[in-house]
Amino acid sequence: MSGEAAFIATLRGLASHPAARGLADDCAVLEVGGETLILTHDMMVEGVHWLAGQDPADVAWKLLATNLSDLAAKGAEPIGVLLGYSLAADNARFAEGLGEALAHFGVALFGGDTVRNPGAQTVGLTALGRATCHPVPSRSGARTGDSVWITGPVGAAMLGFEALSAGIAAGTEAYRRPVPRLAEGRALAPLVTAMMDVSDGLLLDAARMAQASGVCLSLDPARIPLPASLPPGRAREALRWGDDYELLFTLPPGIKPPCPAHCIGAVLPREEVPLLLGGSPPEGPLGYEHC
Amino acid sequence: MSGEAAFIATLRGLASHPAARGLADDCAVLEVGGETLILTHDMMVEGVHWLAGQDPADVAWKLLATNLSDLAAKGAEPIGVLLGYSLAADNARFAEGLGEALAHFGVALFGGDTVRNPGAQTVGLTALGRATCHPVPSRSGARTGDSVWITGPVGAAMLGFEALSAGIAAGTEAYRRPVPRLAEGRALAPLVTAMMDVSDGLLLDAARMAQASGVCLSLDPARIPLPASLPPGRAREALRWGDDYELLFTLPPGIKPPCPAHCIGAVLPREEVPLLLGGSPPEGPLGYEHC
Repeated sequence: MSGEAAFIATLRGLASHPAARGLADDCAVLEVGGETLILTHDMMVEGVHWLAGQDPADVAWKLLATNLSDLAAKGAEPIGVLLGYSLAADNARFAEGLGEALAHFGVALFGGDTVRNPGAQTVGLTALGRATCHPVPSRSGARTGDSVWITGPVGAAMLGFEALSAGIAAGTEAYRRPVPRLAEGRALAPLVTAMMDVSDGLLLDAARMAQASGVCLSLDPARIPLPASLPPGRAREALRWGDDYELLFTLPPGIKPPCPAHCIGAVLPREEVPLLLGGSPPEGPLGYEHC
Repeated sequence: MSGEAAFIATLRGLASHPAARGLADDCAVLEVGGETLILTHDMMVEGVHWLAGQDPADVAWKLLATNLSDLAAKGAEPIGVLLGYSLAADNARFAEGLGEALAHFGVALFGGDTVRNPGAQTVGLTALGRATCHPVPSRSGARTGDSVWITGPVGAAMLGFEALSAGIAAGTEAYRRPVPRLAEGRALAPLVTAMMDVSDGLLLDAARMAQASGVCLSLDPARIPLPASLPPGRAREALRWGDDYELLFTLPPGIKPPCPAHCIGAVLPREEVPLLLGGSPPEGPLGYEHC
């Protein structure tokens, strides 16, 4: 086990509170006075999570969107956020983008902290939401016989990143301004057996869902939706790239989703591998491992 | 107004939710399901908030302690925290210190996020607490005729920082492992008219309390407690240095604090300046302005 993996394992050991599904499940689920709160925190670093020189307004949007995507996967209704912000050259554009995103998603800014940072700009956001459905969906509930679904295509963020890196403005929206599937998450929450967002790539996140659920997810590559603009031969990467913020979920036999979604596979009993793609374990790395 | 001040002002404008006392008051106060939650988020950067090369276990302790100090100033009982962590060379020591601090203060780790960061290590923590007293104390309630108090000396963290910078181990505890005044905060909350911690220096924070309350705080320098080890001639700096995490509070006439504390002044009607020290406005900068 690497030093970093050992660290994560230690943190998981520290997180023994019943609310602390967070370290395995992206969110903490906390019962408070008759309400169920969902809490999540994501951090982003310049040059790692966004391109150096990218419009700070887009960074602010994405910071909010990625956190709200975690709430979406819980079927939660966002309440408000706290911001951790290291000051940079253009703070005004960040504030502008944050204001736009908060208004767009109807979320309140509760407070936060600003710091000086001589290194790479680092921003963090804590989002607080209210569960709309009990039990709150997790990634660990997929059962043999369920069907596997996704709310939309994967690969659009990859194409957007490549266009932006090449200085092309068109087609970058999916990378710069992802839209969390909040309404879909709320509609799906009462029906799903498991749900999560695919922020780290479809294959990696599907494998995580399978592992958390103790099952095998068998995906049919021909049924996985891809962007119309994806060049031939790039499907392999699109399934691994991440940053798409679609919802991956499983439904019991006979249940259909109440929102547009694509059936991409089936849940099998646990096998030696957690994931099959066209009947075989996918080759090479499954996706982007943050750590 | 500088670009940074304009940014902070814009954020304050965005934080129009009733819970968002945060940007003026270090904490957000949120009514949820019949409970009152207190939320705070602090970020710390290597080389800015701690010495490069400092023991990561101390960094973890301080990160938790500074956030809990914000809860202490609200008289809140901590519930749990979310961590934002950029990976560094020695993550194991950070985890060790965090575990020790969580156990010491009886606080749960709910979850969080870890990222790679090519620049200065940056860590953030969101703390969630439960109010024990209504109304929740704020920094804006000081009234003319109140007395001004502090729970302990200022300057110990400064001496600790200097010792640590010089490679001396003795006397560094106050800087490395501050102890938030949680029990004092809960005992004081029902009695105070205003309360805050003095993390940014006594004079600067006292001026902030005066401004938020629309009054003038008149402090008697002879009554401000200082560490026994403070060399002669350094009181001026001790009042401005910060990082001490004592509670500054005001009490109505005739009320005595239920915990050890020092009466250091009185609240006067609003004057041209928010703060008097020995009858005159203090000279020079009041303390450390984070931004």
